[in-house]
Amino acid sequence: MSTIVSILMGSKSDWPIMEHAHQILDQFSIPHESRILSAHRTPEALQSYIKEAEKKGVNIFIAGAGGAAHLPGVIASQTVMPVIGVPIQTQALNGMDSLFSIVQMPSGIPVATMAVGKAGAINAGLLAVSILACRHAHYREALQHYRETQATKLLEQSNPLEV
Amino acid sequence: MSTIVSILMGSKSDWPIMEHAHQILDQFSIPHESRILSAHRTPEALQSYIKEAEKKGVNIFIAGAGGAAHLPGVIASQTVMPVIGVPIQTQALNGMDSLFSIVQMPSGIPVATMAVGKAGAINAGLLAVSILACRHAHYREALQHYRETQATKLLEQSNPLEV
Amino acid sequence: MSTIVSILMGSKSDWPIMEHAHQILDQFSIPHESRILSAHRTPEALQSYIKEAEKKGVNIFIAGAGGAAHLPGVIASQTVMPVIGVPIQTQALNGMDSLFSIVQMPSGIPVATMAVGKAGAINAGLLAVSILACRHAHYREALQHYRETQATKLLEQSNPLEV
Amino acid sequence: MSTIVSILMGSKSDWPIMEHAHQILDQFSIPHESRILSAHRTPEALQSYIKEAEKKGVNIFIAGAGGAAHLPGVIASQTVMPVIGVPIQTQALNGMDSLFSIVQMPSGIPVATMAVGKAGAINAGLLAVSILACRHAHYREALQHYRETQATKLLEQSNPLEV
Amino acid sequence: MSTIVSILMGSKSDWPIMEHAHQILDQFSIPHESRILSAHRTPEALQSYIKEAEKKGVNIFIAGAGGAAHLPGVIASQTVMPVIGVPIQTQALNGMDSLFSIVQMPSGIPVATMAVGKAGAINAGLLAVSILACRHAHYREALQHYRETQATKLLEQSNPLEV
Amino acid sequence: MSTIVSILMGSKSDWPIMEHAHQILDQFSIPHESRILSAHRTPEALQSYIKEAEKKGVNIFIAGAGGAAHLPGVIASQTVMPVIGVPIQTQALNGMDSLFSIVQMPSGIPVATMAVGKAGAINAGLLAVSILACRHAHYREALQHYRETQATKLLEQSNPLEV
Amino acid sequence: MSTIVSILMGSKSDWPIMEHAHQILDQFSIPHESRILSAHRTPEALQSYIKEAEKKGVNIFIAGAGGAAHLPGVIASQTVMPVIGVPIQTQALNGMDSLFSIVQMPSGIPVATMAVGKAGAINAGLLAVSILACRHAHYREALQHYRETQATKLLEQSNPLEV
Amino acid sequence: MSTIVSILMGSKSDWPIMEHAHQILDQFSIPHESRILSAHRTPEALQSYIKEAEKKGVNIFIAGAGGAAHLPGVIASQTVMPVIGVPIQTQALNGMDSLFSIVQMPSGIPVATMAVGKAGAINAGLLAVSILACRHAHYREALQHYRETQATKLLEQSNPLEV
Repeated sequence: MSTIVSILMGSKSDWPIMEHAHQILDQFSIPHESRILSAHRTPEALQSYIKEAEKKGVNIFIAGAGGAAHLPGVIASQTVMPVIGVPIQTQALNGMDSLFSIVQMPSGIPVATMAVGKAGAINAGLLAVSILACRHAHYREALQHYRETQATKLLEQSNPLEV
Repeated sequence: MSTIVSILMGSKSDWPIMEHAHQILDQFSIPHESRILSAHRTPEALQSYIKEAEKKGVNIFIAGAGGAAHLPGVIASQTVMPVIGVPIQTQALNGMDSLFSIVQMPSGIPVATMAVGKAGAINAGLLAVSILACRHAHYREALQHYRETQATKLLEQSNPLEV
Repeated sequence: MSTIVSILMGSKSDWPIMEHAHQILDQFSIPHESRILSAHRTPEALQSYIKEAEKKGVNIFIAGAGGAAHLPGVIASQTVMPVIGVPIQTQALNGMDSLFSIVQMPSGIPVATMAVGKAGAINAGLLAVSILACRHAHYREALQHYRETQATKLLEQSNPLEV
Repeated sequence: MSTIVSILMGSKSDWPIMEHAHQILDQFSIPHESRILSAHRTPEALQSYIKEAEKKGVNIFIAGAGGAAHLPGVIASQTVMPVIGVPIQTQALNGMDSLFSIVQMPSGIPVATMAVGKAGAINAGLLAVSILACRHAHYREALQHYRETQATKLLEQSNPLEV
Repeated sequence: MSTIVSILMGSKSDWPIMEHAHQILDQFSIPHESRILSAHRTPEALQSYIKEAEKKGVNIFIAGAGGAAHLPGVIASQTVMPVIGVPIQTQALNGMDSLFSIVQMPSGIPVATMAVGKAGAINAGLLAVSILACRHAHYREALQHYRETQATKLLEQSNPLEV
Repeated sequence: MSTIVSILMGSKSDWPIMEHAHQILDQFSIPHESRILSAHRTPEALQSYIKEAEKKGVNIFIAGAGGAAHLPGVIASQTVMPVIGVPIQTQALNGMDSLFSIVQMPSGIPVATMAVGKAGAINAGLLAVSILACRHAHYREALQHYRETQATKLLEQSNPLEV
Repeated sequence: MSTIVSILMGSKSDWPIMEHAHQILDQFSIPHESRILSAHRTPEALQSYIKEAEKKGVNIFIAGAGGAAHLPGVIASQTVMPVIGVPIQTQALNGMDSLFSIVQMPSGIPVATMAVGKAGAINAGLLAVSILACRHAHYREALQHYRETQATKLLEQSNPLEV
Repeated sequence: MSTIVSILMGSKSDWPIMEHAHQILDQFSIPHESRILSAHRTPEALQSYIKEAEKKGVNIFIAGAGGAAHLPGVIASQTVMPVIGVPIQTQALNGMDSLFSIVQMPSGIPVATMAVGKAGAINAGLLAVSILACRHAHYREALQHYRETQATKLLEQSNPLEV
């Protein structure tokens, strides 16, 4: 089966966060690939990659970025397929800069924005699965199973007072 | 063709914003419906609606909310299908409350968050189309056409100095 | 005497903060229980719990949550009894997200919001006691005693220059 | 029946907001009174009032304030009974100043903080009713009725597309 | 003399602000042109324009943008010449989104960021002049004259009490 | 010479910051005293202290507080003499809560607000000296000497490249 | 009696706010003068004015400024006498920029910062009076009278329900 | 070749950040010097330095500052040549104070503002080079080479999954 999801980030330092999106896609056996490409430092390589990825069958792009976080928006300007943005926390402005730069896209070019940081990367993976679930019923079931496991684990936690 | 997208909002006062999502879906001939249901005021009716909607074939939920904007997250807790959240601007905290309440979802329950206000509602509609484009090639073409029209209109605008 | 107050949180990681509400209730000998239940991950279990708790005699709910902190509001949508919300500090947005998601409830569904973090959890416990003090004079006296002890301790602290 | 709830504000200009708390208490037939007293401009008159109010049977204080909004906290420092704070929106900092000044109370002195503005004032009234509902079952029923009416009104609103 | 400065903006609605940069350049007789081109809606036309502009002799780019304001950063990723960014005020987040999206550029790709709105557009024009003043002494003199006129006007204003 | 300045704080944990105000007053040989008194926990003791302090000759109050930082404002409501407020940094909201709670005082009751944290405490001491300099020329000279020493120290620092 | 207080602002457009400081000083019969001088546009004229003003007997400077509000800090760098800063509200960042630029002064150079806008200007005037009250007992009495009048007016306001 | 760029900062503690601007200028062999001079603590020495620097041939000023960060603006008020501002991160308000104090300059006196912290200092150096590139073609080539090296390094990074 061909690669369906592509995970992009502007720097290797974003990998410890974006890795969580990769792990979710692995867990759901969704063919995907991860690349380091920057909207600012390698604009042409990014552009070429997006075209090739779409040709290979990539349907969904996940992009993590921090600060003046343009990567998800720049990808969205070059594809009409769903782009999911993960704001990476920054030191100075606490990730508020990353969040605003990703979520406040102008009308016409949507980016599906997730929470800042690790939870956002996990949810980017899960949103990709749910998008695929619109097409393949078995992903819907897999997601329902994931949710049930999540709920069971939480409910199995003992009463905190009994700790 | 059965209803595929559902647009929800907690109050009729959100309609002037959420109407823009409806107009996009209309423009792309995507069967959809709009309902006023509140996570806080009608939690049970909301729950019943989500179940029925999924049975009818609804695949994607778009939800607009302001302030402590729980509607998108509460929907996401009751379906595994994609939920798109539109933060509605509030008077006091400028929509920062709406944005944070929607985007900062915990890991496990994603909400695809859009920009605050009208641009966000338009983009919610477009993201729904792009999700459907993963399944149906003709939506991809329709989106490409939409983007081209958008670009042409912008480029046709004369040099501002000539105004 | 039956359980009067229930302390809820969405994750065991919130216990080190919410524990302070528990300690206050213990100190005032108010029968209470603590549960881990999530508005997003276990919506049905949460709903069942609230109904049962009310049947058992629970009058007041204290809920701690972080990020898109929906737990207090979701509880408030399912009970008319007082709900006290404690915003848990988050890494990325400093708890501003938790605070806004809890305090900005729409008209009709109040949540009594406390300070972010430990002080908020302690005060959630104390507010519960003061609510009970409306019914039972001895809680009022106990609170007055608590305040006096607090004041005495503070006044007994020596002049900082003498340290 | 004696006065149970007192609504306080530092300036007559806060009345158009605080009036909503008054209307809720009226609607639930809860004996209450409203006073203009300032933590900063009339500290002694405020102090005397709180003592007298408590003697008269006032159990719950609702206080609205804007900017460096000290009124709710100053009341809470002089009574152990529940104090509900309503942040009034300000021009310069959008009510963020009012909110932070009310909600971030130190441990030991809780203030039950509501949303900024009108929704907050309405909810202050409703929280007072729910506090009384811990004591009197009929307030609980009245609140349930209020919620049902609220839900019915919302559900009776037609599908927005039919407007 | 060939065009030296290019003023870009993503939408005609930005012209009433960006016009002020144009007026400054006019006032200093600096050959310049203004174009409406969007980083998101017309990425390819933008790319072509930047290349042509540089060939024509454009040395400095001024770009205005609002919301997830990527235009200045995207231009800076395609030229090594100075790029000046003007954050346009937005309705929802008060231009804080525009500012953060422009100023928080990653190391390697600078954007010279100005104040939000009209003052920023005026100063973008003046910064362009001061950059040219590094090369041509007469611009330095012209700027000194501008400053003196500015100072004189301010000092000529009568004592406010005499108004 | 009698005590002229009083340094107040609500908790001993504020002393490591407020100590810097004390050190400045020591350095300028200004008779002063430091007390731990809380606007919320010991309102009556605070009130008595202010009256006594004024009788003793205290002319200037310096108050440090964090979170819903009411101490400086409450002092200012009980004296017409200058009150200097020092916002103490908090964990959750970065001292923005402390700053807003102190600086946004309503018209009629000024608090001279300093920077958040240590610099603010140092400057509170210096502002007190400059207030006394309006009365006694020798404080003005002492301040000029302090400034010159400060400048000399800074200028004596070697060129950073020589480090 | 010679001029004791100087009110400075960077632009005539600040006068409608700063006028309130002037009115307070008038009301307390404190000799003062108002000048339009800019830290950025007329740095030398500002410097000369400060020196002359001090020679004339000016003891206290009040300065209003908006945006990157440097005027109060620049004055404070050139005098050791008390400088009172009034942040003027701006359109884009709601006066948060004005406030931060004035209040966050480094250690060594204090600026007594007031609330944003009109209340801040009134309080700047009152703080100047209270500084003079350290020297002249009659200003202390005048301030006490002002406070009493303020309190009386507030208490004379009828119960809002009686309106 | 004479000194062309001057790097200024108000305190030696800013050097670990500002050093990055120095390293970039070194790397591009641009004659420059670094000085510690404060807008607040050594206003006169700063003024003399700026005049002398301009006489020596300094064309571009880079200034780093934190908190109420007036240094870049004060320099800009005394020269018409390009001034580049680097906001230094502060503890309390996360560098938001530094950013707002530098970027929100009034019309007439531009400061080219960079990102908060290290990336901002690096980019200040690069912007200076790009300004010089308007005059000297070889700097343009050097910058293009720098960008290419940057891109190559990024692209050479292996696929994160291969780590």
